Amino acid sequence: MTYNSDQFSRIALIARTHDAKQGQKQDYKQSRMLQHIEQLYQLLLTKGKTVFFDQQTAEHMHFAAHASMPASDLASRVDIGMVFGGDGRLLEMAPCFAEAGTPLLGINYGRLGFLADISADSLQPVMDVLAGRYFLEQRLLIEVKVQRGSQTLAGGIALNDVVLHATISKMIEFELYINQKFVYSQRSDGIIVATPTGSTAYALSAGGPIIQPDLDVLTLVPNSAHTLTSRPIVIQADSEIKIRVGHPPYPIVSCDGQTKIRAKRDDLILISKYPSQCVLVHPHDYDFYATCRTKLDWGKKLGTS
Amino acid sequence: MTYNSDQFSRIALIARTHDAKQGQKQDYKQSRMLQHIEQLYQLLLTKGKTVFFDQQTAEHMHFAAHASMPASDLASRVDIGMVFGGDGRLLEMAPCFAEAGTPLLGINYGRLGFLADISADSLQPVMDVLAGRYFLEQRLLIEVKVQRGSQTLAGGIALNDVVLHATISKMIEFELYINQKFVYSQRSDGIIVATPTGSTAYALSAGGPIIQPDLDVLTLVPNSAHTLTSRPIVIQADSEIKIRVGHPPYPIVSCDGQTKIRAKRDDLILISKYPSQCVLVHPHDYDFYATCRTKLDWGKKLGTS
Amino acid sequence: MTYNSDQFSRIALIARTHDAKQGQKQDYKQSRMLQHIEQLYQLLLTKGKTVFFDQQTAEHMHFAAHASMPASDLASRVDIGMVFGGDGRLLEMAPCFAEAGTPLLGINYGRLGFLADISADSLQPVMDVLAGRYFLEQRLLIEVKVQRGSQTLAGGIALNDVVLHATISKMIEFELYINQKFVYSQRSDGIIVATPTGSTAYALSAGGPIIQPDLDVLTLVPNSAHTLTSRPIVIQADSEIKIRVGHPPYPIVSCDGQTKIRAKRDDLILISKYPSQCVLVHPHDYDFYATCRTKLDWGKKLGTS
Amino acid sequence: MTYNSDQFSRIALIARTHDAKQGQKQDYKQSRMLQHIEQLYQLLLTKGKTVFFDQQTAEHMHFAAHASMPASDLASRVDIGMVFGGDGRLLEMAPCFAEAGTPLLGINYGRLGFLADISADSLQPVMDVLAGRYFLEQRLLIEVKVQRGSQTLAGGIALNDVVLHATISKMIEFELYINQKFVYSQRSDGIIVATPTGSTAYALSAGGPIIQPDLDVLTLVPNSAHTLTSRPIVIQADSEIKIRVGHPPYPIVSCDGQTKIRAKRDDLILISKYPSQCVLVHPHDYDFYATCRTKLDWGKKLGTS
Repeated sequence: MTYNSDQFSRIALIARTHDAKQGQKQDYKQSRMLQHIEQLYQLLLTKGKTVFFDQQTAEHMHFAAHASMPASDLASRVDIGMVFGGDGRLLEMAPCFAEAGTPLLGINYGRLGFLADISADSLQPVMDVLAGRYFLEQRLLIEVKVQRGSQTLAGGIALNDVVLHATISKMIEFELYINQKFVYSQRSDGIIVATPTGSTAYALSAGGPIIQPDLDVLTLVPNSAHTLTSRPIVIQADSEIKIRVGHPPYPIVSCDGQTKIRAKRDDLILISKYPSQCVLVHPHDYDFYATCRTKLDWGKKLGTS
Repeated sequence: MTYNSDQFSRIALIARTHDAKQGQKQDYKQSRMLQHIEQLYQLLLTKGKTVFFDQQTAEHMHFAAHASMPASDLASRVDIGMVFGGDGRLLEMAPCFAEAGTPLLGINYGRLGFLADISADSLQPVMDVLAGRYFLEQRLLIEVKVQRGSQTLAGGIALNDVVLHATISKMIEFELYINQKFVYSQRSDGIIVATPTGSTAYALSAGGPIIQPDLDVLTLVPNSAHTLTSRPIVIQADSEIKIRVGHPPYPIVSCDGQTKIRAKRDDLILISKYPSQCVLVHPHDYDFYATCRTKLDWGKKLGTS
Repeated sequence: MTYNSDQFSRIALIARTHDAKQGQKQDYKQSRMLQHIEQLYQLLLTKGKTVFFDQQTAEHMHFAAHASMPASDLASRVDIGMVFGGDGRLLEMAPCFAEAGTPLLGINYGRLGFLADISADSLQPVMDVLAGRYFLEQRLLIEVKVQRGSQTLAGGIALNDVVLHATISKMIEFELYINQKFVYSQRSDGIIVATPTGSTAYALSAGGPIIQPDLDVLTLVPNSAHTLTSRPIVIQADSEIKIRVGHPPYPIVSCDGQTKIRAKRDDLILISKYPSQCVLVHPHDYDFYATCRTKLDWGKKLGTS
Repeated sequence: MTYNSDQFSRIALIARTHDAKQGQKQDYKQSRMLQHIEQLYQLLLTKGKTVFFDQQTAEHMHFAAHASMPASDLASRVDIGMVFGGDGRLLEMAPCFAEAGTPLLGINYGRLGFLADISADSLQPVMDVLAGRYFLEQRLLIEVKVQRGSQTLAGGIALNDVVLHATISKMIEFELYINQKFVYSQRSDGIIVATPTGSTAYALSAGGPIIQPDLDVLTLVPNSAHTLTSRPIVIQADSEIKIRVGHPPYPIVSCDGQTKIRAKRDDLILISKYPSQCVLVHPHDYDFYATCRTKLDWGKKLGTS
């Protein structure tokens, strides 16, 4: 698929600017990343692009004076968001860019990511995208709300997963309903509701299947369930998932590992497909299974190893 | 959903007539089943229905003279097929009834089945169906062909799964392609390509997820793969699955555990969605998750155990 | 094995006295349990036994004046501890009774337990034990210590497991050493170090094998490891297990789900076999695999289902 | 541990001489292996060693006249067996070398093996072993016999595993007894009884745990069991394992993937520890967990990736 090369004239540059695990190596990667961003910024200006930074990224730039604003404001003002770092930063950006309908490109400065799938080794792949050599992919998001009595508490939006977590060393107990039908009650460390995108993230570690990214399904993966017959279930993405919180201890609900809500007794955790989708920009030779092969060390073609 | 009670005027009665594991207990179940069929036959006649038997079933009836024919001929001459026994007999009937567009009802005379979901305890549920209290569900089938050089060998049609099996105690080696894209090469005991219906059969034992029956997806489940990162993959049902056979030993291909083809070097095993779907008749209170709860011993509603 | 029926002349009665999940049903069970204990108390007195209560249990008795003391003091003053409730209360008692060398008998007032394996339906099984119809089984315990710089922090003692837990929604990272040899570094939700007794508890939910109770081994079970090839490992119980805490977030360490220590960077978590063993009193017809069959719904003898 | 360097004066050279998967690449590896063996042979003669070949290997040598005999005769006439190829050839040699008490050294000419753990890149590691830089490790073997009525059929001896296999696409049904105690009946694709050595072979693919090589235990791993709660069980190696064959179809029994016996109805498959152990020669820096890290791609020390 080839697009008009002028399609992306307003560009947001968004970097991973915090790193909880910051050691010497990370510092080096971080500073190399910031250098690349500066190079790219200059290059984009020479090409007549309008460049924006999110506020956090702007604070790390060595040069002054350029348009910067909160990431949530950026989404509706640019034609593309370029996210430098790993999958984590892209996950943070996904909801507001999805709502604005603005595509996101992930450039990887850590371990190869499933989302940040452009290598950071050179700026060429980014130039290729600007030259129109790319394709777009829609990824569904999910939304969680917590109904407490007559109140509906804001929850969050996730590109990977909504997770119910037990607190340390005590199984939680809950009832699961799909489209108003009772499925089971379960005692476990929690349950993961994953999008196809999230199927290769936490859900995979917990025993879930790999879901082709464009399927319109959600996967429910129990986490260390007490009952050994509790298995991953794959359902229509349009389903209404309802989880009724049982006896204490009560679960914590998280969205892509971020938003955290502490549930209470008889809370209803409601999970459904979010109306907007995230648009990912992939290099033109993107291949989901090639990423799987690399990250999961799957077998190469026979006779080639 | 309520239908015209006259919808099913021509009825095929099809029994499990062989039992490899025939012991005293099975004999008893078998003869009770045949008694019920005779009772039902008389009852149907009094209601003015036209009743057919498949040839095998007819041979086990104690009364003479009634229309009997091969199962494959029956499908297009009746309005409904009633299958007595377990899931196995219904699987055998599925392809020809699917092609004819004739619905199938399963009456269970063994362990509770996922397909034969009407209990054999009384004829009431069958009467309910004839009275219009039922609903219909479409289940997708898959087809396998073997391409050997320029030849395409007939394969088979499956409601549950197409399986590549290693022969005893030697792993097989193959390459997997989805829609012409290389996915991985794998050494394993085999691979299961399961429909949603088959997700609760062999694929589940091999570690696959449970798939909601109406999803338009297929699941690929490796069987004891040498590489521990080979995980179940869920894909669009419309995908073209191609498996290229590698070094000896060569796999055996089976359809719902029946048709068996011995593959050869460089054979291409082609698996795709079958154009017709199987129509299942369920009692009006059918609930897929209730069947799961019973068969998998999932937790009941909290406070009810 | 038959013992002198006078072996158990000083008896401690210890009840589950708290229930986080207390609803109506539990209250009923709880009061029935306390009734039984009172009956047993009277019966034991008529048989000339000396009966002790732990302080918590004593507070729930309807009659006054009897020897009560903290559970830890009881262990060395009695010949047997009878624990009423579920596996949880017995786990709490295990370390101090193990140190004193005093056997423990579990009487089950909840779900069938792997430890509390005497049914609460009548006092007969308890009488059988007092009459000498029982056998004793040794179960190994493990101990955890945390080495922080030059300090060694007290940890805890566990009959089931020592667990490193990630805090909510962030994988932890650590290095594992067995007998000073580096095994692997791992990013995961945590790791479970289970005794054979603990192999049927949390470790089983997390994917660990079932270990015959008298084996002198420990099992290391990763919990939702990022790397799919991280599998349970079974090692000599006499091994020294050392876990070095890596980058934040830091894990919480628990013992049988109770003691909780928050680890810090470069802490060494040291796990080793505890010098004393827990002595369990089983009814004379105790059968570990029969308990497994009941709790795990394993298949009965063929031809008997 | 350093030994007298003259300990190994009579040496058997044993090569993999057949390769079912022989393609161009394998041919190359095979001829390089034979070259190395010839070089080693000359070198050993100059050092005054007496060198034997097994008959199959001798036939592939380019020079004439040297002592050759069946592998089974070799074992008792030499001080060490050097096996060139992969784990497969070493498995074949294990029973007769175990019985003779003669150690085996594995030199790897394929994928890194768990048994053939000396790299084929140079002859130095072999020279190191001859110079006394090595250590010996005992590995237990198991034996299988089939009791059919009053007859006891010879079975086989295995270093990795004894496996009951279903024939293609039909689950088998059997009862399992450990030390005369009934454990469960099971419908499955089979069951693997693995030694600690075998725990990293087929048993691992089927979901079993990794067992430290020197443990005196066996692991029972069900293969795609119908009942999802059938989990791997680890038991004393001295246990008597008895499997009673149920209804048809009947299983095939194999030993290290080789000996194959077709069982019949009511056959008792008896598996027990073999009286002799296999002695493996490892390079002095051998580290089981290092092999695991390489083969299973486990995480390296933190800060080193």
